Amino acid sequence: MIERLCIIGVGLIGGSLARALKAAGYCGEIVGVGRNQANLETAVSLGVIDRFELDAGKAVAGADMVVVAVPLGAIAGVFETIKDTLEPAAVLTDTGSAKGSVIEDAERVFGGCPPNFVPGHPIAGTENSGVEASFAELYRDRQVILTPHETTDANVTAQVRTMWEAAGARVVEMDSIHHDVVLAATSHLPHMLAFTLVDSLARLDDSDEVFEFAAGGFRDFTRIASSDPVMWRDICLANGDAVQLLLDHYMNDLQALNTAIKQQDGDKLLAIFQSAKTVRDRHIKD
Amino acid sequence: MIERLCIIGVGLIGGSLARALKAAGYCGEIVGVGRNQANLETAVSLGVIDRFELDAGKAVAGADMVVVAVPLGAIAGVFETIKDTLEPAAVLTDTGSAKGSVIEDAERVFGGCPPNFVPGHPIAGTENSGVEASFAELYRDRQVILTPHETTDANVTAQVRTMWEAAGARVVEMDSIHHDVVLAATSHLPHMLAFTLVDSLARLDDSDEVFEFAAGGFRDFTRIASSDPVMWRDICLANGDAVQLLLDHYMNDLQALNTAIKQQDGDKLLAIFQSAKTVRDRHIKD
Repeated sequence: MIERLCIIGVGLIGGSLARALKAAGYCGEIVGVGRNQANLETAVSLGVIDRFELDAGKAVAGADMVVVAVPLGAIAGVFETIKDTLEPAAVLTDTGSAKGSVIEDAERVFGGCPPNFVPGHPIAGTENSGVEASFAELYRDRQVILTPHETTDANVTAQVRTMWEAAGARVVEMDSIHHDVVLAATSHLPHMLAFTLVDSLARLDDSDEVFEFAAGGFRDFTRIASSDPVMWRDICLANGDAVQLLLDHYMNDLQALNTAIKQQDGDKLLAIFQSAKTVRDRHIKD
Repeated sequence: MIERLCIIGVGLIGGSLARALKAAGYCGEIVGVGRNQANLETAVSLGVIDRFELDAGKAVAGADMVVVAVPLGAIAGVFETIKDTLEPAAVLTDTGSAKGSVIEDAERVFGGCPPNFVPGHPIAGTENSGVEASFAELYRDRQVILTPHETTDANVTAQVRTMWEAAGARVVEMDSIHHDVVLAATSHLPHMLAFTLVDSLARLDDSDEVFEFAAGGFRDFTRIASSDPVMWRDICLANGDAVQLLLDHYMNDLQALNTAIKQQDGDKLLAIFQSAKTVRDRHIKD
């Protein structure tokens, strides 16, 4: 049970966590923090948070759990703002989609990764953003990855785990470097491919007509290209090494496919498509 | 009104057309043709077709409308099989995803693109295949592109248009070369990217774990990688020139993105993502 939860960044991710914990009766007061007062007023009127502060440093005073749910590029600034007012016994966690960069931010700002900080990442989201898009069931049966640092206190990790479980999630722990490669593969790379496809087609001469004949497959394939651009810029900058590794691997394979088409190599093409279908049908439930 | 409809290839596409026309009361008897007798027996027991033949040449005798709904690579063989028994007054159309190659097939087999042949392509489908996946509403409010050749009789085109409209579709006409480029952009290229992504990740050392952490975005993005591999091999071979053109364009853009990540160029990344989101939100309804 959390007495006072401070959520810094009340958008889809932070807002949905607040809703889920309220629905579960798992916390007392929820204080929201953000830069946009109108958004925070909306969050109060929707019942997502109880009250808000524009100053994160003021908001964390008295909070026993602090969740930082801002884009990756803003996390270091939040750490700076709260470092002098965060309660010594408070638990600090984040929801960033890359973990190595957040640990580096914490080390730089706090002079070492604090024992009460648990880097975290809920594997959930939609292409929509903002508190209006938040909903209590976002984390139901979804996975949350925690990447406790070697300096992180195990009891603190357990508290963060319990919070996410109260929100309906399944929690796993993983090394932060491994997390960043796995997520580059399953999330960051697909987003790069989808953003690039839509942007690439938009620059064709007859792009309006092209989109007119897009069917359901295109709609599903490009859904993630409607995601928040700032969030994804920050992910690219924060997890650039892993994203590049996967992108290079992918571009080699795409070049091989291109060559197979050029050479009219039907057997090679069939082998690639068959492998992909078999693997996807085995792993992914539609 | 069609008196006897012959559908060659009773899978998702042919089966759904049969169901839609039956539901609309737009045709008398429907004769299905295929190589797999068990599949055809299923089609009869599901009420999709009235009876079946294994020999297309026999099946087209007496039919006033013949729809060829087999993979692109099998269309020339079907044309060969039916050319001597097709009724002179029968209307012939197909559902192939590329049109230039089908026109070439027709020219080669019939010694010129016949006046009663209307190349067609319904922009509809799912990642599932086979007659069990067919349903009467597949074409409801979806677009069907007809690409009548310069030799095609306008009255015949009108009959095919009316058939698709009876199935609930909206029909547009387009030059076959233009069709092939537009479809390469919105359908063939995305399929190549999705198949390659799943195959590429499947060959990572820790691929099982990678797929374990795939979330909803990945599921949607890769749905089309569960499509029929044979059909897609045939599309790559039939529409190779247009697919390569688009793939080259895309790979240039993907390389530019890779460079932006390497150079930590946040402004460039944001511009790409913002452009993609704006264009998609404008054109695609989720």
